[in-house]
Amino acid sequence: MQPLSCLSLRLEAEGLFLLDQTLLPQQECWHPCRDVATLEQMIKALQVRGAPMIALCCALLLAWLTEQGVPRAQIADALERLRATRPTAVNLMHAMERLRATLATDDWPQRLIGEAERLFIEDRALCTAMAGHGATLIANGDRILTHCNTGGLATAGIGTAIGVIRHAHELGRNISVWVDETRPLLQGGRLTAWELGRFGIPYRLICDSMAAVLMGSGQVDKVLVGADRIAANGDFANKIGTYGLAVLAHHHQIPFYVVAPHTTVDGHCPNGKVIPIEQRDGAEVRGVRTAHGHLEWSPADAPVFNPAFDVTPAALVTGWVLDSGLYGQADVEQGLFGSMQG
Amino acid sequence: MQPLSCLSLRLEAEGLFLLDQTLLPQQECWHPCRDVATLEQMIKALQVRGAPMIALCCALLLAWLTEQGVPRAQIADALERLRATRPTAVNLMHAMERLRATLATDDWPQRLIGEAERLFIEDRALCTAMAGHGATLIANGDRILTHCNTGGLATAGIGTAIGVIRHAHELGRNISVWVDETRPLLQGGRLTAWELGRFGIPYRLICDSMAAVLMGSGQVDKVLVGADRIAANGDFANKIGTYGLAVLAHHHQIPFYVVAPHTTVDGHCPNGKVIPIEQRDGAEVRGVRTAHGHLEWSPADAPVFNPAFDVTPAALVTGWVLDSGLYGQADVEQGLFGSMQG
Repeated sequence: MQPLSCLSLRLEAEGLFLLDQTLLPQQECWHPCRDVATLEQMIKALQVRGAPMIALCCALLLAWLTEQGVPRAQIADALERLRATRPTAVNLMHAMERLRATLATDDWPQRLIGEAERLFIEDRALCTAMAGHGATLIANGDRILTHCNTGGLATAGIGTAIGVIRHAHELGRNISVWVDETRPLLQGGRLTAWELGRFGIPYRLICDSMAAVLMGSGQVDKVLVGADRIAANGDFANKIGTYGLAVLAHHHQIPFYVVAPHTTVDGHCPNGKVIPIEQRDGAEVRGVRTAHGHLEWSPADAPVFNPAFDVTPAALVTGWVLDSGLYGQADVEQGLFGSMQG
Repeated sequence: MQPLSCLSLRLEAEGLFLLDQTLLPQQECWHPCRDVATLEQMIKALQVRGAPMIALCCALLLAWLTEQGVPRAQIADALERLRATRPTAVNLMHAMERLRATLATDDWPQRLIGEAERLFIEDRALCTAMAGHGATLIANGDRILTHCNTGGLATAGIGTAIGVIRHAHELGRNISVWVDETRPLLQGGRLTAWELGRFGIPYRLICDSMAAVLMGSGQVDKVLVGADRIAANGDFANKIGTYGLAVLAHHHQIPFYVVAPHTTVDGHCPNGKVIPIEQRDGAEVRGVRTAHGHLEWSPADAPVFNPAFDVTPAALVTGWVLDSGLYGQADVEQGLFGSMQG
């Protein structure tokens, strides 16, 4: 296989190497990953995260295992195990479908490896295309609010929502970003703050509960978020907290955009109500785990509700920014996503 | 002076003893407090918190110092210093006005001490009165969402919003509570969870960003919050995140109530726009500080926006629960708060 790399992944002859996203930004620690159990664990612990990135890691690990001579039946099993690691994001399922199709062919090893490499290279191009379309929405001086992390760590390229922000910044628009810290796992406070700082994009970090007062005082011009799955009717699942931002943006008449590649669209999913939502461990809410250790501040027996995602109805979305272009309510009503193939 | 005590304060002959609210629930640590500098520091660090409680601590410290023979001029200076410790909550300012009035009299020491004791005893009665009125709003089976901590730790009695919840529970209504963790200082995750657990009131802890999905899925029947200042037009300041909850409740047509004693009303403040909002240190958002230590997860140089409070316009409030009764939009429009004396 050809060596491939991006901000959070390196494919080398010795295996896959993954940047541990739970240790950022204090530690840049790369873990080798050469078997399914390791990757399963890393995905469940969110050491690897971001809907596109999870799909690429799984695809490239299967390709690397194939190159090592692992037999077809074992690859097929591994594929099913990896497919089930996170239930909400659909990119992983789409990527696994593309690899599974190659298993039925006689020359499946080359085909599977080729398909995995293509997924990676395509994802980079999808990011660039989204950024190009999305940047046309961004005006000079815009103050953009974003949630979670949707940048180079979550994709093979420059990202989805953050890709748009980064491209607009590169085009010289004088933008700034409000970064939601994104409890409980703090992908905004840890990862987005780190990425924006690296690129010299002005930002300010806030707690999730501070977005409303910024909107109410006219300090937010646009909201840009990513997605983990877009249903046929335009509803979409994304990191917990996104739905609340959409309601707040609607109340304050602030444009609200979703940025995602077509690999995030699930045309077979009629609406957001049927998207499965992963419930995670209560310990994530009772405290925090970082590179410097673990702290729990709530009563040890505090019962917790901890959904990893929520669903935003299409009616609250101003526009969908895809690699193929910009889409509005009318496009969605005409069945845009129902006919789209992830 | 007579000994006085409540959940977070003890007045003894040796001085004031205050429960350190930054160490709860892991450590129940009482600090002696016998001078203004100590109390100033404890208020700024939120070791002592809650709008009514701050007022009572300041009043009782001044009374204790008076009893120790501290001269009038020094008490007057101390009063001004304490008055300025937190700019948003008005209860402190009202309490200081009541004590200052005694300084003009010849027998000021007895009068000041008597007034401070009265403030404490009155606050307990105000809580009981609010709880009685507020509990009439709570139906059997209600799932109540609350923010920050408004219980026994924040007042001399059973609390404001939590006082209503506790009283409804005592009346046998089968209620449960959604507890917002309340970033950045986690008064919900640390203090409210602890208080509700002590009283056996069923609750579940959530991150602030999870309130929206609970409302959207019909799992919240009412929102109850406290207040740090209520303006003449009914707008009110409360812990950051309250305004967002009010917008979300409005969008989902969920009743939203403010529970506060009349000492929280500032009839001289025409509306919420002129309530001063304290901005706090960025380190609170870049990480967390608890009984078990301090962790910072964001880039050390991450710029932060960290208002301690936000303002909710009266239009988003279903009802105001005061010690004197329940009030609605019509009462407020008729000038209820403008004529009220804190």
